[in-house]
Amino acid sequence: MTPMSTLSPQPYKGTRDYYPEDKRVQNYIFNTWRKVVQLHGYEEYGAPMLEPLEVYTAKSGQELAGEQTYAFTDRGDRVVAIRPEMTPSISRMVAGRRQELGYPARLFSIANFMRYERPQRGREREFWQLNTDIFGVDGPMPEAEIIGLAAEIMKAFGATNDMFTIRINNRKLIDFTMGQYLGLDAVQAQMMIKLFDRKNKISPEDFRDHAAEIFGAENSPRGLQQIAVLIAAKSMNDLPEELRTSAAAREVQELFQLLEQAGVKNAVFDSTLMRGLDYYTGTVFEVFDTDPQNNRSLFGGGRYDGLVGLFGAEPIGTVGMAPGLTTTELFLQSHNLLPKLVSTTEVGIVVLNNTYSAALKLAQNLREEGVNVEVDITGRKLEKQIKAVIKKNIPFMIFVGEDEVSSGIYMFKDTMTAQEEKLSFERIVSKVKDRRHISDDDEFAVFFD
Amino acid sequence: MTPMSTLSPQPYKGTRDYYPEDKRVQNYIFNTWRKVVQLHGYEEYGAPMLEPLEVYTAKSGQELAGEQTYAFTDRGDRVVAIRPEMTPSISRMVAGRRQELGYPARLFSIANFMRYERPQRGREREFWQLNTDIFGVDGPMPEAEIIGLAAEIMKAFGATNDMFTIRINNRKLIDFTMGQYLGLDAVQAQMMIKLFDRKNKISPEDFRDHAAEIFGAENSPRGLQQIAVLIAAKSMNDLPEELRTSAAAREVQELFQLLEQAGVKNAVFDSTLMRGLDYYTGTVFEVFDTDPQNNRSLFGGGRYDGLVGLFGAEPIGTVGMAPGLTTTELFLQSHNLLPKLVSTTEVGIVVLNNTYSAALKLAQNLREEGVNVEVDITGRKLEKQIKAVIKKNIPFMIFVGEDEVSSGIYMFKDTMTAQEEKLSFERIVSKVKDRRHISDDDEFAVFFD
Repeated sequence: MTPMSTLSPQPYKGTRDYYPEDKRVQNYIFNTWRKVVQLHGYEEYGAPMLEPLEVYTAKSGQELAGEQTYAFTDRGDRVVAIRPEMTPSISRMVAGRRQELGYPARLFSIANFMRYERPQRGREREFWQLNTDIFGVDGPMPEAEIIGLAAEIMKAFGATNDMFTIRINNRKLIDFTMGQYLGLDAVQAQMMIKLFDRKNKISPEDFRDHAAEIFGAENSPRGLQQIAVLIAAKSMNDLPEELRTSAAAREVQELFQLLEQAGVKNAVFDSTLMRGLDYYTGTVFEVFDTDPQNNRSLFGGGRYDGLVGLFGAEPIGTVGMAPGLTTTELFLQSHNLLPKLVSTTEVGIVVLNNTYSAALKLAQNLREEGVNVEVDITGRKLEKQIKAVIKKNIPFMIFVGEDEVSSGIYMFKDTMTAQEEKLSFERIVSKVKDRRHISDDDEFAVFFD
Repeated sequence: MTPMSTLSPQPYKGTRDYYPEDKRVQNYIFNTWRKVVQLHGYEEYGAPMLEPLEVYTAKSGQELAGEQTYAFTDRGDRVVAIRPEMTPSISRMVAGRRQELGYPARLFSIANFMRYERPQRGREREFWQLNTDIFGVDGPMPEAEIIGLAAEIMKAFGATNDMFTIRINNRKLIDFTMGQYLGLDAVQAQMMIKLFDRKNKISPEDFRDHAAEIFGAENSPRGLQQIAVLIAAKSMNDLPEELRTSAAAREVQELFQLLEQAGVKNAVFDSTLMRGLDYYTGTVFEVFDTDPQNNRSLFGGGRYDGLVGLFGAEPIGTVGMAPGLTTTELFLQSHNLLPKLVSTTEVGIVVLNNTYSAALKLAQNLREEGVNVEVDITGRKLEKQIKAVIKKNIPFMIFVGEDEVSSGIYMFKDTMTAQEEKLSFERIVSKVKDRRHISDDDEFAVFFD
């Protein structure tokens, strides 16, 4: 059973190992998400890691379904894919219990996904997202709720209004703009939407040249002028009258009124925002980092009423969004918003002279008081035991030897301040619990670790 | 954008959808696991969903790596597998930071896995496990710790000692038994181990016939007698002297002494316990349900010191185990140990006469007090709104209309008892928080939801 050769200890390309110090950051973000969406009445669900590939080919768009999925044929000849997103899975689940669910159904999950992309900063092949959706309500109220929830999530991480902007558009307004205002046919409109979607990734000259091509020689002078008006519009009021007075524009205005009432101060209209996926049917939005060093889209969402129809159910009003782990982590780093996170283990017991039965008994008593505690059972020198506790970022350490056992008074050390004091069992318990309350204020969601 | 045909709303074969009521059970089990292992100083980690296939072919055994993996070739021609177990991944991670980690490294994860098996009760193709391992310590202490942790986990779910048994054996003792006592060569020993592994799945007659075949005609009379002695042994004391006095047997005896000191009362020696996977090197154990209706192995673990070596690191003392979600759920059901779980949403606001701005304001105020609350924004009849709150298992409901807004006194209803009373905002907050404390006693880990 000797291995033939040594395998690499590196994770598979584009995936990450989460060692405890990385997992702490991940859990801080997951717990903050969970806390905020649960405060707003969203309930957690889970969906399978694999779905039939056709679930994605039908509606997600060619790039995602065709080029980016991890698809394969299983041993029973089914063509399946590792989920590249959650929206089709939750639509399938809602379609499967269309009659049984209570509405509005507010649902969330925190899950991992895979896409075959070139790994780069902020983009991994395996990635984690919060997906949070409300099913069963038409009109602007659920849209205002989801966008408000996006703002609440940002604030729960400590972000202030100047750190992010929420850009909003509407697919119906986009369709009206492409058809009625710019005079494009369906094929041209589709091309123009894709071009707008890439607008921030190409130069203004390239954008103009491609747009002119789509219009064709005859229409391009007028078309480019009209596009310039769209791009310059900083609010609905700057739009040309025929757009501003359209039914779709009135939907957008209603939404902005609700957002104002809800106190969302950093939502702006952006006529160039498209969202790549094909299934959106109304409002679309994206949250942008305002930091010039990290001026990227953090996450987005929108209304997608028809997706349950793919699974044989009547369309249902649906609005959702999906913040990602990696972009959130980069945002928190760039704005210096990540709290100092320590181990979930609160006490490390250092054992002198192999007094294990006393050390294990003390650990058991602390656990009965709800304290997370580990015991060093290596039998190593004191110095090495102490170093290990510090390396693991455990906030407190207790030394247990024969004297401590007979006196019931233990040397207790704060590993952050290096302060030492002799304390009774009861004082140790209250010291450990005091730290939690301080961290609660600090870290918001430490209870959910 | 019309779909070509309707897709099935069923999940992929052998996988499960977790709707909120299913996810509550899953989270109750996950949170109980997390709480217990964190009390014992274990820290959470995460590993990728995919690994190179060779990680499993090298050490996990032919059945798991060859027949049961979801393996495929990625777009970069790498042969990968969806993880069928966690042990190789965490061994890879420890090998990758052999020098940097603090020891003993106590690590756990809660993750999903896939195996291509025939789905049946208690066995799904996608399944969830707690994996909890201690790295860096030789000898029986970490083995006693992990087995003690297994008992603590069972007790945290409300199991009493009569509901489960922990059966223990040792790979070194198994090897000694096969070679020295039964006189088998390496190939015969491997066949005999596999046969013992299937012992509870075949008839005693089949077991005897297969064993006789392995011994061969000449040796089978003596061999079958010796096996009968092994099977009859209820403790180490019942073993033949040459086994009982072996070095391997002394290891087992030391372990039982530590378990007795730690108060683990339901551990028994079982000379027929093998554990299927190839990587174990010392103690192996399995937790069995004692219920005659569900008399199955719930989970197990053991010592596997060499697995980091696969990734180029020096061997390191390692003991671990992996309780599964589905077997735990079946155990809790069969012993009637599952608590009544309600929604994480604590309050549903029912809105009269479209008084949304008041309802949303009340919801916001409740959230600021830490209460999880949803608002019905459908504009439906009162009766339908009430039904939806009850359907979702939300414990409380508040009615908001014009009278409530002007008086500041709300009709507050307990959906479980159907009791109604008129309460101020402050009284509502304390009523909701009172319920949490009651549930804490009841459900152990409700804080971690």
